[in-house]
Amino acid sequence: MSRWVTRPSHVAEVEGGGLARGFRAAGVAAGIKNSSPPALDVGLLVSDVEETVSAARFTASGVQAAPVLVCRERCRLDALRAVVVNSGNANAATGGRGLDAAAKMQGAGAMVSGVGEDRVAIASTGVIGVQLDDRKVVSGLLAARSELAEDGDARFGEAIRTTDGFPKQATLDVTLPSGVVRISAQAKGAGMISPRFATMLCFVQTDASVQAETADLLLGVCVKRSFDRISVDGQLSTNDTVILQCSGASGVTVAPESDDELRLGEALDYLLRRLALLIAADGEGSKRVGRVVVHGGHDEAVTRVARAVANSPLVKAALHGGDPNWGRIAQAAGMALPGTAPLALDIWIEDVQVCARGAAVPFDEPALAAAVAGDEVEYTIGLPGEGAECEVFFSDLSHEYVTINAEYTT
Amino acid sequence: MSRWVTRPSHVAEVEGGGLARGFRAAGVAAGIKNSSPPALDVGLLVSDVEETVSAARFTASGVQAAPVLVCRERCRLDALRAVVVNSGNANAATGGRGLDAAAKMQGAGAMVSGVGEDRVAIASTGVIGVQLDDRKVVSGLLAARSELAEDGDARFGEAIRTTDGFPKQATLDVTLPSGVVRISAQAKGAGMISPRFATMLCFVQTDASVQAETADLLLGVCVKRSFDRISVDGQLSTNDTVILQCSGASGVTVAPESDDELRLGEALDYLLRRLALLIAADGEGSKRVGRVVVHGGHDEAVTRVARAVANSPLVKAALHGGDPNWGRIAQAAGMALPGTAPLALDIWIEDVQVCARGAAVPFDEPALAAAVAGDEVEYTIGLPGEGAECEVFFSDLSHEYVTINAEYTT
Repeated sequence: MSRWVTRPSHVAEVEGGGLARGFRAAGVAAGIKNSSPPALDVGLLVSDVEETVSAARFTASGVQAAPVLVCRERCRLDALRAVVVNSGNANAATGGRGLDAAAKMQGAGAMVSGVGEDRVAIASTGVIGVQLDDRKVVSGLLAARSELAEDGDARFGEAIRTTDGFPKQATLDVTLPSGVVRISAQAKGAGMISPRFATMLCFVQTDASVQAETADLLLGVCVKRSFDRISVDGQLSTNDTVILQCSGASGVTVAPESDDELRLGEALDYLLRRLALLIAADGEGSKRVGRVVVHGGHDEAVTRVARAVANSPLVKAALHGGDPNWGRIAQAAGMALPGTAPLALDIWIEDVQVCARGAAVPFDEPALAAAVAGDEVEYTIGLPGEGAECEVFFSDLSHEYVTINAEYTT
Repeated sequence: MSRWVTRPSHVAEVEGGGLARGFRAAGVAAGIKNSSPPALDVGLLVSDVEETVSAARFTASGVQAAPVLVCRERCRLDALRAVVVNSGNANAATGGRGLDAAAKMQGAGAMVSGVGEDRVAIASTGVIGVQLDDRKVVSGLLAARSELAEDGDARFGEAIRTTDGFPKQATLDVTLPSGVVRISAQAKGAGMISPRFATMLCFVQTDASVQAETADLLLGVCVKRSFDRISVDGQLSTNDTVILQCSGASGVTVAPESDDELRLGEALDYLLRRLALLIAADGEGSKRVGRVVVHGGHDEAVTRVARAVANSPLVKAALHGGDPNWGRIAQAAGMALPGTAPLALDIWIEDVQVCARGAAVPFDEPALAAAVAGDEVEYTIGLPGEGAECEVFFSDLSHEYVTINAEYTT
């Protein structure tokens, strides 16, 4: 567990996982991933509650995958009951044929779930620019239907992953003033991860009874503090999707602006930040995770600097090598704020100040070298002024990242 | 020689190099680089002509190195006679002490050159955030004075390099309508290279007689088409400096808006693009160079897409692996233009169209795989509309880049 995420006292881990009440899930091998032995690559997740409400967030990219376009144009995003996901193919940059395949995937999802098409969200992840074989997806969904189970979250989570090195899911029991609710979540993502969102999928289920407006509000706030704040390689994806579904099956009602809402929000915030941090830690080839916190007087300036540092391949490579090369932090900050020289920059690495008002300060080099040798390294940057702050988590840049990405399609 | 740079017919290479008339240069080992045997690390370049005019360009970073600040604040940038450069230390993020060291470097340069301090430009390159030992620079300059020579460009060029894998310099004879002039240039740069400028230094000398306004105009136009259009790792540096000096020692006068000016500009454009391409080719650990050309209807859109593609570590890794993974090109373009979906994107790799109006098109995969196995790979992107175009050269992302940058200071 990272020191950067603290579990609230009213939140308990559920060992062994399992879905929130009202949900069932499955994962099957449909032959979309070209792997031997066959890997799980089609996931199905269904709420059995007619009144289920939902909220969703998608990539801001100008090149959006067919499933994202279909979700945005053909779904009731506030009332999603089923989610269909395939891995191994992103169905992106696939034109009209890709939209047809996505529509068939949605239609098959509706059939096997027994709900209307507009209540079925679809998502894809994998290689871009290759046509998706929708017959394989449909066959997979038929098989998945008979495997739907309340503890199907592990197989569903496995079916949505691609280059991920480890599972990213959790089940929490959350004690609200009005009663106990459960939240379960399954995420994937390890490459093409940007702080402006990420090539990542995350599906969250709760059995709390929540209004659609509340679900949208909570998801929006928590995504901004989690998946919007991680960088593996600064690359915004074509397929990013986050969906929150609320079945209400616990019987616990979370009213707007209540203490229940506050507590549920804290739990969701903890959950998504934890999953986001796992994505950064699982950055392709990653060995170490960095956290940069920038404070100063201007929201835009602190955000730009935090992202520039988190995205810098030089900072990432230094993190990889356990090299306390803070000059690259100053360089990235300066690049993010052109025309501001001389910039009165303060820099700390693991609470050791290395730069004060733009100039190097003497520090204990062996102590700092030891501090940056750990699994997590924290960088703090002070810009002039007060009141604004931004944090971004980022992975390092390793030889393995190059190996993975130089040999992906071939 | 790259297919992307064509030598104009009125320009001839001078085998064996040498400086333009009126200039002398030297490079010495002053002990700033911590290497064994000692490497050249202090360079001195002097014009013997009192009437020498000049032009200069510097980094736009908010964190500017002391030598850049000193040049901007204390130099007559239109009348520089001497240039003093050290490698092995960037004298950046070094505060008041760094500014003092830079001032001493400038003062020593004036002394050994016999010119006023305001006519001495200084530049530094190397590690950031470490104080520069100005006594070593001063000792080096005293030694360099006695070594100044008309063929000192090779040693000067060597003294300004850091992680460069090969020399980047050239000497050209340029036949103008009014006579023959010579241009010589020495450049360095291999990492922290961004299309918004680069961690690079370039010093250009000509014996043409040019007005300062003309020098500034020509340098500005040519930098925009060369050093402003390359990316190794998207990292804008603290020290970027380009200086053009014109001694007039050839006796050939280049009048404003004359054919002479046009021809001299063509030669300078050729020279700087060639050096810029050498910097991209020498990108830290680089094996291949890419060129992305984006055309469409909007200047800002084509520039943003070209830079996003050139800076993408995924595109760079695919270039490295000889992987025709054009989906990453679509992804980078989409990231550069959020909110424009669906984007009618066309993509060609080496004249093979792989994407038309946003969708994959069938292509000859073995032929394309062979095409991207060469030393240079060209990517063309069409956005809607016509009239705007931007090209950026970029290096690939290799294991060696990670090795070099994970172990730089330690």
